[in-house]
Amino acid sequence: MIIEMEKGASQKLIDGVVRKVRELGFDVQPNIGEKETVIAVLGSNTGEVDTQIFETLPGVKKVIRIMSPYKLASRDFSNKKTIVKINGVEIGGSNVVIMAGPCAVESEEQILACAKEVKKLGGQILRGGAFKPRTSPFAFQGLKLEGLKFLAKARKETGLIVVSEVVSVNDVPLVSEFVDILQIGARNMQNYSLLTAVAESKKPVLLKRGFAATIEEWLMAADYLLRGNGFNVILCERGVRTFDNSTRFTLDVGAIPVVKRLSHLPIIVDPSHAAGNFRYVPVLARAATAAGADGLIIEIHPDPQNALSDGAQSLTFSDFARLIGEIRIIAEAIGRKI
Amino acid sequence: MIIEMEKGASQKLIDGVVRKVRELGFDVQPNIGEKETVIAVLGSNTGEVDTQIFETLPGVKKVIRIMSPYKLASRDFSNKKTIVKINGVEIGGSNVVIMAGPCAVESEEQILACAKEVKKLGGQILRGGAFKPRTSPFAFQGLKLEGLKFLAKARKETGLIVVSEVVSVNDVPLVSEFVDILQIGARNMQNYSLLTAVAESKKPVLLKRGFAATIEEWLMAADYLLRGNGFNVILCERGVRTFDNSTRFTLDVGAIPVVKRLSHLPIIVDPSHAAGNFRYVPVLARAATAAGADGLIIEIHPDPQNALSDGAQSLTFSDFARLIGEIRIIAEAIGRKI
Amino acid sequence: MIIEMEKGASQKLIDGVVRKVRELGFDVQPNIGEKETVIAVLGSNTGEVDTQIFETLPGVKKVIRIMSPYKLASRDFSNKKTIVKINGVEIGGSNVVIMAGPCAVESEEQILACAKEVKKLGGQILRGGAFKPRTSPFAFQGLKLEGLKFLAKARKETGLIVVSEVVSVNDVPLVSEFVDILQIGARNMQNYSLLTAVAESKKPVLLKRGFAATIEEWLMAADYLLRGNGFNVILCERGVRTFDNSTRFTLDVGAIPVVKRLSHLPIIVDPSHAAGNFRYVPVLARAATAAGADGLIIEIHPDPQNALSDGAQSLTFSDFARLIGEIRIIAEAIGRKI
Amino acid sequence: MIIEMEKGASQKLIDGVVRKVRELGFDVQPNIGEKETVIAVLGSNTGEVDTQIFETLPGVKKVIRIMSPYKLASRDFSNKKTIVKINGVEIGGSNVVIMAGPCAVESEEQILACAKEVKKLGGQILRGGAFKPRTSPFAFQGLKLEGLKFLAKARKETGLIVVSEVVSVNDVPLVSEFVDILQIGARNMQNYSLLTAVAESKKPVLLKRGFAATIEEWLMAADYLLRGNGFNVILCERGVRTFDNSTRFTLDVGAIPVVKRLSHLPIIVDPSHAAGNFRYVPVLARAATAAGADGLIIEIHPDPQNALSDGAQSLTFSDFARLIGEIRIIAEAIGRKI
Repeated sequence: MIIEMEKGASQKLIDGVVRKVRELGFDVQPNIGEKETVIAVLGSNTGEVDTQIFETLPGVKKVIRIMSPYKLASRDFSNKKTIVKINGVEIGGSNVVIMAGPCAVESEEQILACAKEVKKLGGQILRGGAFKPRTSPFAFQGLKLEGLKFLAKARKETGLIVVSEVVSVNDVPLVSEFVDILQIGARNMQNYSLLTAVAESKKPVLLKRGFAATIEEWLMAADYLLRGNGFNVILCERGVRTFDNSTRFTLDVGAIPVVKRLSHLPIIVDPSHAAGNFRYVPVLARAATAAGADGLIIEIHPDPQNALSDGAQSLTFSDFARLIGEIRIIAEAIGRKI
Repeated sequence: MIIEMEKGASQKLIDGVVRKVRELGFDVQPNIGEKETVIAVLGSNTGEVDTQIFETLPGVKKVIRIMSPYKLASRDFSNKKTIVKINGVEIGGSNVVIMAGPCAVESEEQILACAKEVKKLGGQILRGGAFKPRTSPFAFQGLKLEGLKFLAKARKETGLIVVSEVVSVNDVPLVSEFVDILQIGARNMQNYSLLTAVAESKKPVLLKRGFAATIEEWLMAADYLLRGNGFNVILCERGVRTFDNSTRFTLDVGAIPVVKRLSHLPIIVDPSHAAGNFRYVPVLARAATAAGADGLIIEIHPDPQNALSDGAQSLTFSDFARLIGEIRIIAEAIGRKI
Repeated sequence: MIIEMEKGASQKLIDGVVRKVRELGFDVQPNIGEKETVIAVLGSNTGEVDTQIFETLPGVKKVIRIMSPYKLASRDFSNKKTIVKINGVEIGGSNVVIMAGPCAVESEEQILACAKEVKKLGGQILRGGAFKPRTSPFAFQGLKLEGLKFLAKARKETGLIVVSEVVSVNDVPLVSEFVDILQIGARNMQNYSLLTAVAESKKPVLLKRGFAATIEEWLMAADYLLRGNGFNVILCERGVRTFDNSTRFTLDVGAIPVVKRLSHLPIIVDPSHAAGNFRYVPVLARAATAAGADGLIIEIHPDPQNALSDGAQSLTFSDFARLIGEIRIIAEAIGRKI
Repeated sequence: MIIEMEKGASQKLIDGVVRKVRELGFDVQPNIGEKETVIAVLGSNTGEVDTQIFETLPGVKKVIRIMSPYKLASRDFSNKKTIVKINGVEIGGSNVVIMAGPCAVESEEQILACAKEVKKLGGQILRGGAFKPRTSPFAFQGLKLEGLKFLAKARKETGLIVVSEVVSVNDVPLVSEFVDILQIGARNMQNYSLLTAVAESKKPVLLKRGFAATIEEWLMAADYLLRGNGFNVILCERGVRTFDNSTRFTLDVGAIPVVKRLSHLPIIVDPSHAAGNFRYVPVLARAATAAGADGLIIEIHPDPQNALSDGAQSLTFSDFARLIGEIRIIAEAIGRKI
């Protein structure tokens, strides 16, 4: 941590800051320049200290953090790439893992049809929402328990791994019973009680990036999960909010190499929620694959025009099949497989 | 709702869209222009219909919503300005209501000192966090039950109304027992299970705007609350996230007149979280008052340098007293009081 | 254009709007719904009309544009994909065109070394700044005329096409004399006098997207160029500004399919300015290729550590060579070549 | 400047960085912590050095700037508040200066009517565009020379100071002849050739903030002007672009205290372009005044419904008169006058 003093700050003010740093158990090194003084705070855990402790001291102009404020998700904590293994499927390994399914589970027929399609095309994981967080209270909120049962049935019939979102701390035990991976949605990325409850379940987790979360905040949210669950955390980039809405969100494809540099966790991409429009989903999926995503999570539907939610961004089975073909070639082009 | 067809869309495709609109029970009016066809969907509740139902139909280029997707929070639902009344204090009436207190309740002494200061300066509401949502799992998470008890004690001693944040559905009954107004924090604005649980408590609610939420999404979140609690909802603007971080968030002062035009709900402003720096808090508070905010919620601390959270943006008691003096004059300048 | 009236707007107010629409020569179709009235404005050029003409009329709530405000850049104007042809190289055709070179021309040796490297690896276009727009007036501003001469020499020796930025209307004739493609930088995308001067030069133009420009504004800027120069306009996505700066800008990879849907113009990608860091450039370049970019413009330098500008995002020759190998395979994976 | 080394960077890499710092003539102080090494670069002008010089060195993780990259606009350069004086009017002094007029000069009658209204209400400065930068090439581009002549006439008749935008380097001499203050528009804030030409004219300048410019970039643009013109620079906040467009831009009211802390230059506010809607202009104007703006620049029009540009955000004369009354009271409330 670096503390920049106001220009012309007196020796007395500088001494006050130095004293406070020492009180907190850190080493301190003041660098007195011609025009200004900067004070370096040194120690192995300065990342955990609130910068505000120094910002309120008299004579302080700015406090600049050097160490990252996240810890368990950091490469500094574990420099070995984490591979999340579930029923023999490796996420974060050499293969690009394909996850697909409908936005919401609507019926047994619908989810089974999707599951069979995913299986047929070589996908490993089935997605499907049973509890749906909706911006409007008047919109369809999911089939809940019934949806979970349909998912379990699809899993049994196809052998696919199942991922589904959990939206409330009280649903964690129930959802955990029926699915293999708990999904934390973008709008709940900083819902710390939910993060804590999910961490305690010891289940693998898919943590979506909040649509206005910095990568730093995302990794701090991962820290909540990593305290509990033995590194079974998969990050998922799904587009961020910007000034332009020609796509629903702006896929931050650069987040892939940044996360791989800063963290040991695997990162997958959701091109469907970023695009918000089925026309753009394949392009974003291809870009994510070329950028090194460890997997893709794609919305498909047997009949998008009659979907109960997110129909506009769901692929038909034939569009999905064509996309998988394209993804396979790109994955191979960069030395991976699907 | 307006459906814009692709240029040159055939009569058959137009008929398909018209048929779908009628199936859903709406009136329809196709406007066939020289270069393109737009189809108006008419009815009293088109705001509740997902645009995607039409976006997936062949020949459709774009679907444009006309009616707002929120309902209960809208001026169309109730054109009379809502005044939230609690123990004789009116929020949304002619007075600018002052709410203040520490970010987190840290001790009985601290909260009592703050409460007395608020009372002395003519404030009506005491804030103080007992359950703290923190970006890092390693940061101070609040005194929880003990904090609530201290708040209740401060209320008893001063007669102030108390507002405190609730971060988990399971805490709603407990927090409701001790405080007068439940606060939903910015990071939980789209935590729909929490919104639902809070609505069911029938308590008045302070709903902070998510830091990347549009005003439309904010009013949709208010709809979740308004289903349950008889219009006791207070909106709170607290800064949005932009590309510039010279203040921690960018106070969207324009949200005040926009909300007043679109909604009947009262709107207050939190200058402390927007500023993130005590130096800028008074300026933002003055701007909000001049812009017509129905109240202010301000962080104060007897000793900001030793605060357990948000010290950098907390005002000392003397700075707070000076600010109240300024606010009073500005409120009077626009025909209000504090 | 759709005009939404305030709820309960009187017939007289509606008639006033209808009259104004007719005065402007448009057809009009009022749709009187149960709760609100919307008025459709019909005609072949409503995209050119300022929405404000109606926004100020009494009783009007909102005006919604249907037709896009850009014209010449639109698929509605020309549905055939534009291919910009320069000395036998086609931009927007089936090949992914490689453009590379240093941020700034620094010396004859430096630009020749870059040119030979580009040529050797199969690139077609050499980039290099002679006039540099710099955020600080104290930074290196480019070699100007001398730089242009070095570029011309490199062109002569290698046969490469040359692109270079022009930053002032007065430099347009000079730069046009020495280079094949004039570049408009991101910060000048809405510098309309420059756009006009460049259009008049009849030279092919590379138009970078402003870092906070919507795609609509970008295509409107292209309209300025298209009035003059016979469709020789190449669009270049180079990252947009968001709340996150873990990469210098956020590459909007979704802009590629959106532009291809809305416009007939070719679109290339600049991964270097988006990344701002050499480590992330190859990943962004691969993603852009997989997303269908018609070309890439990449910063390279024989000795990035001693570059006079943008060294941090410049690739060394060996990194560049490796990247070209990767790009080639991805281009082939989607049926293109480099 | 602080250079953070990669974790575990060898002594040899550290030495390499230290050597480079010394080569550039700076003092250096390496702080070797338990987990990581940070190297402080000390000297009076580190703000002018490109961080990339160090970012490309092996073993370097991140470079953090301490000194601001702007110089002449900084409080470090001149700690005395600058007051721009023109014909006896002081901008940046104790009064809130009122500037108003139409978006575009449309006719002699129109500009004279506006000028008389501004004069009558106690305003000091008349605005009016003769050269209009428009997003669409098909929109009205201003009356140019004729408009300047009308402005000069209005100045003669009323004694008001005149400000008008200049959009091209070649127009600088002409516009300088007719107006008192040259305006640089938001879209030209980083048009460095224009900044340079305007600085050379020695005229006072009104520098609008680019709608996606950080405060740092804005002050760097001011540096271009300050090299030439003797501190006659007025900054103007006019709203920034965010994800929400319920107002056309988001007025960054917090920029006022931030600029006052970082710079000696006066700052005024344009509530009209921020609002984009006449309904919201008065609220933003009041907020800006309460926040300490040194002036306001407001769009008015004798007949907004027939304005050739920006009618939707122009105030009628009666709305403007009411607003001036409100502003006067708020200014007095904070100890200023208009």
